[in-house]
Amino acid sequence: MNLHDLVRKLRVKNESKIVLLVADGLGGLPLEPGGNTELETARTPNLDLLAKRGTLGLSIPVLPGITPGSGPGHLGLFGYDPLEFQIGRGVLEALGIDFDLGPNDVAIRGNFCSLDEQGIITDRRAGRIASDIGQRLCEKLDKITIPGVEVFVRPVKEYRLVVVFRAPGLGGNVADTDPQKTGVAPLDPVGRDADSQRTAEIAKAFLKQAREVLKDDAPANFFTMRGIDKRPAIPTFEEVYGLRAAAVAVYPMYRGLARLVSMDVLDAGLTLADQCSRLEQAWKDYDFFFMHYKYTDSTGEDGNFPAKVERIEQLDAVVPRITALKPDVLIVTGDHSTPSKMKSHSWHPVPVLLSAANCRTDACTSFGEGQCLTGGLGQFEAKHLMSLAMAHAGRFDKFGA
Amino acid sequence: MNLHDLVRKLRVKNESKIVLLVADGLGGLPLEPGGNTELETARTPNLDLLAKRGTLGLSIPVLPGITPGSGPGHLGLFGYDPLEFQIGRGVLEALGIDFDLGPNDVAIRGNFCSLDEQGIITDRRAGRIASDIGQRLCEKLDKITIPGVEVFVRPVKEYRLVVVFRAPGLGGNVADTDPQKTGVAPLDPVGRDADSQRTAEIAKAFLKQAREVLKDDAPANFFTMRGIDKRPAIPTFEEVYGLRAAAVAVYPMYRGLARLVSMDVLDAGLTLADQCSRLEQAWKDYDFFFMHYKYTDSTGEDGNFPAKVERIEQLDAVVPRITALKPDVLIVTGDHSTPSKMKSHSWHPVPVLLSAANCRTDACTSFGEGQCLTGGLGQFEAKHLMSLAMAHAGRFDKFGA
Repeated sequence: MNLHDLVRKLRVKNESKIVLLVADGLGGLPLEPGGNTELETARTPNLDLLAKRGTLGLSIPVLPGITPGSGPGHLGLFGYDPLEFQIGRGVLEALGIDFDLGPNDVAIRGNFCSLDEQGIITDRRAGRIASDIGQRLCEKLDKITIPGVEVFVRPVKEYRLVVVFRAPGLGGNVADTDPQKTGVAPLDPVGRDADSQRTAEIAKAFLKQAREVLKDDAPANFFTMRGIDKRPAIPTFEEVYGLRAAAVAVYPMYRGLARLVSMDVLDAGLTLADQCSRLEQAWKDYDFFFMHYKYTDSTGEDGNFPAKVERIEQLDAVVPRITALKPDVLIVTGDHSTPSKMKSHSWHPVPVLLSAANCRTDACTSFGEGQCLTGGLGQFEAKHLMSLAMAHAGRFDKFGA
Repeated sequence: MNLHDLVRKLRVKNESKIVLLVADGLGGLPLEPGGNTELETARTPNLDLLAKRGTLGLSIPVLPGITPGSGPGHLGLFGYDPLEFQIGRGVLEALGIDFDLGPNDVAIRGNFCSLDEQGIITDRRAGRIASDIGQRLCEKLDKITIPGVEVFVRPVKEYRLVVVFRAPGLGGNVADTDPQKTGVAPLDPVGRDADSQRTAEIAKAFLKQAREVLKDDAPANFFTMRGIDKRPAIPTFEEVYGLRAAAVAVYPMYRGLARLVSMDVLDAGLTLADQCSRLEQAWKDYDFFFMHYKYTDSTGEDGNFPAKVERIEQLDAVVPRITALKPDVLIVTGDHSTPSKMKSHSWHPVPVLLSAANCRTDACTSFGEGQCLTGGLGQFEAKHLMSLAMAHAGRFDKFGA
C-alpha cells in the first residue's frame, strides 16, 4: 500500500483548517562553525512563541544528501514522493509563467541563441537579450502555424521562452536540441517513442519556420529546446486528502506547482500583507491553505545573510495575522535549505514548526535549526509532513482495528 | 528510481577528495548502565576537534535491530543496499585472501575436519591445525583435477581454506556439506537448481578425490564446504559515483570487499602509520579513499574493553596525518558496533563523524555515542552515507528544477 492509498483509506472530513506556510529555502548555515544560521539570527518573537507551544523537527526534502529544485521540494511538502512524481523542466517553466497546461500539452523550455552564417551556435543565450526583445520575438514566433496543432510561444525572461504544442496523443519524451556547447549546430529533435516521434516532427517543422522568422534578429536569430515534457499524471490534492485547497502565492512558479496538484490558485497580490488579506477573505471557503514566501530563498541565493535574516523577520511580523484566524494546524517550514553561505539550494534538512492542539510539545523555545534538531518531530522525509498535518487536524481515522 | 540511479543522474565531477575512515566495529556499550562506551572512554582530542567543527550522527547498518557481518556492513557504507546486494560466505572468504574472483567462479569456504574410521566427524576444525599445515594440505588438494573445470585450492588460516571451481554456467546455489555438529558424517553437496546441481556434482567428484589425498593427514583428514556461492553482479563504485576510489586496508577481507565494488586496492603495509603513508602517496591519484582499521573490532570481539579503548586512541593519534591532507570531506565511522560487553557484532547504531566546509554544525563537542545521538545527521541508514559524502563534496547537482 503506497502512502497516498493509505491517506485515501484513513482520511475523514471535519471542519478543521490547515495552513502550510512555506518560506522558500528557509534552512541555512552559520557563516562560521559554531555561529548562528539566518533563522537563528533573526528576531522572531511570534515564531518563537509558536515553537514553545508547538513541536519542531527537520524535514529531509527528498533523501539524505539530495538537494531539490523547487518542483521536488514543493511536491514533497504536498505529500507527493518527489522520486515518484517527476516534473520536466519545460513543464515547470510553463507553470512558472502561469500557463495553464492541459493533458494534451507538450511544454518546452526555449533559449534564444546566436547562430553564425553556417548555422553554428556562437552564443547559447543570445547575448542575454533584454526581456522586451525576447517578448517581441516570442510574439513573432507565436504566429507560426502547424496544421492540426495549437502552438503557444510565451516569453519568460531575457533569452528564455516557453513553447507549448497542444494536440491529442503527443508524446513528451523528446531529446533536447540544445547541444550544451557553442561551436556546433543545434541538434534535431528526436522522439524516443512513437508518440514522441510525432512531437519531434512537429518541433522540427516549427523550428524550420522559426529559423526563417528570426533570420534578421541576430543576436537572437534562433532558439534551442530543452526539458521537453508533458505535465505528469498526478492525483489531485483534493482527491488524495479530501481537502479543498487554496494557494496564496505571489510567484508564478509556486502558483504553477499548486496548480499541478489542482489547488485553487488565488489572486495573492504582491506583498505578505496582500497574501494575509487574501487568506482572511478566503478563510471560510477552503480547508487547506498553502502560503508561499519567496524572499528567504532569493536572499539566500544572493548570498546575502543579513537580507535573509531581515526577510525572515518580515515573515515573523505577519504571523499574528495568520494565528488570529485560529487555524487548527499551522505548519511553518521551507521546501529546502538555501544557505546564504552557499548561494544555492542545499541538501540540509529544513526547519519545521507544527502548531496544533494535540501536538506533543518538546523542550524547544525558539524556531531555529539547532532547536529543530532536538524537536519532537525528529528528522523525517518531507513527504510525511501532510500526514502529520492531517493527523493533527483530526482528519485521519485509525489504521486497522 | 532507485538510489543508484538517482546518484548516477545527479553526480558531477570536481577536484574534491573524500576520505572514509572505517574503524571496524566502532560502536560500543558501557559495561554498566550509565557508564561510558569504549569510544566515550577513549581520550580522542583529534576526533573531538573534528566533532566540534563537523557534524555527528548515528548510522543504522541495515535496518533497526539487524546485526550485520562485515560484508553487509561495508556494502552499506559504500552506498549499496545490503538487502539488495548479498554476498555468500565463500565469496567473502575468497575476497579475503586476495583471490580475484571472476564471473565463472563458484567460491566455497572449506574447514579442515577430523573423521574417524567410520567417516564420522570428530572435530569440525581438525584440532585447529597450524597455518603451515593447512597450507601444505591445500597445495596437495590444489593438484586435484576435474575435467572441464579449473580448480583452485587456497589456504586462509589454520583449518580454513577456499576452494574455487571455474567453468562457464556453474550455479552457486549449493547447500553446505558441514553438518554443523560432530558425531555425524559430512553431508553430500546438493544443488538447488539445474546449474547448481552441476556444481554439486563437481564438488562431489572433488571431495571423493580429496578424501583419498588427505587420508593420511589426520587430524586434518577431510574438509567440509560452506557458503558456496558466486560473486554477485554489482555495479562498480566508479560507475555509480564517478569517483576514482582506492582502498587502504590491511586485512584481506576488507581489501576483498573493496575489490568487490572495483576499488583499486593499494598495498597498505601493516600499521596505521603505513596506511597513512600510502594515503599520502596516493593522494593525487584518487578522489575517494576507503581506509580500514581492524583492531576496534577484534578487541571488541575479544571482550577487551580497555584494549578497544587503546585501539581507538591509537586511531585518534593518526587523525592529524589525514587532516593534514585537507580532505574536502572526512567521515569517521564503523561498519557496525562491536561492544566489548557482548564480544560480538551488534545491531546498535554506529557513531558517524562528518567534517566538511558546508556541514551544518551541531552542539556536539566530542565523538561518542551519546553525543552522536544529538548530532546534526540524526539516525540514518548507512546506505545514505555516500550521498551525504557526495553532497558535502559538491559532487551532486540538484534534483529537478
